[in-house]
Amino acid sequence: MEKVNLAEKFSLFSDYWRPKIVGDLNDSYVKLAKLKGEFVWHQHEEEDELFLVVKGRLLIKLQDRDIWLEEGELVIIPRKIEHLPVAEEEAHVLLLEPKSTVNTGNVRNERTILDAEKI
Amino acid sequence: MEKVNLAEKFSLFSDYWRPKIVGDLNDSYVKLAKLKGEFVWHQHEEEDELFLVVKGRLLIKLQDRDIWLEEGELVIIPRKIEHLPVAEEEAHVLLLEPKSTVNTGNVRNERTILDAEKI
Repeated sequence: MEKVNLAEKFSLFSDYWRPKIVGDLNDSYVKLAKLKGEFVWHQHEEEDELFLVVKGRLLIKLQDRDIWLEEGELVIIPRKIEHLPVAEEEAHVLLLEPKSTVNTGNVRNERTILDAEKI
Repeated sequence: MEKVNLAEKFSLFSDYWRPKIVGDLNDSYVKLAKLKGEFVWHQHEEEDELFLVVKGRLLIKLQDRDIWLEEGELVIIPRKIEHLPVAEEEAHVLLLEPKSTVNTGNVRNERTILDAEKI
């Protein structure tokens, strides 16, 4: 049981769209990710997913509207809702999601990560 | 599905040790609490609990050691681990815990809240 300093953990990696596990509670992981550019449209069949912006800003596109998240803002994307994260500039994001969650949800492509790294 | 601005939500209340629900995902709640002073020793039988300090600093006393959390630091207290949160000055904290979690865990006293308010 060690505390996690978010800034320190973010300093340990520089790759985009590859969430790292920094905590484990109940059936979920806390992950940190650096995002830049556009991800892929996807949804999670069974998992609600929390995005908290720690640094920068993040656009989450939904089918019917856009949600802009600034530092200190979070949103919970419910299961089965298609979404597309977009970061015009580098953004640092904390994710909370069930351990079963795959980053690309219902999509499998070169950006899919099936075994996130723990840092 | 509305975004949550943490600072704005914290501005909506001023009472200490009374966590407010600001989000709901999977089987858990995201709660915000203002803490000042000493809470009560307790543990949660079945629930792991995440504390993220958004403002100020928080001491979490364990039976065998102390964990000091500064802004931007989090810790996960596993189930069955006795802990005592202490805030020398006002601290703003984000909590993540299963919906079944009672703030005072295995203890019932005047600080116990069985129905947290949603804000």
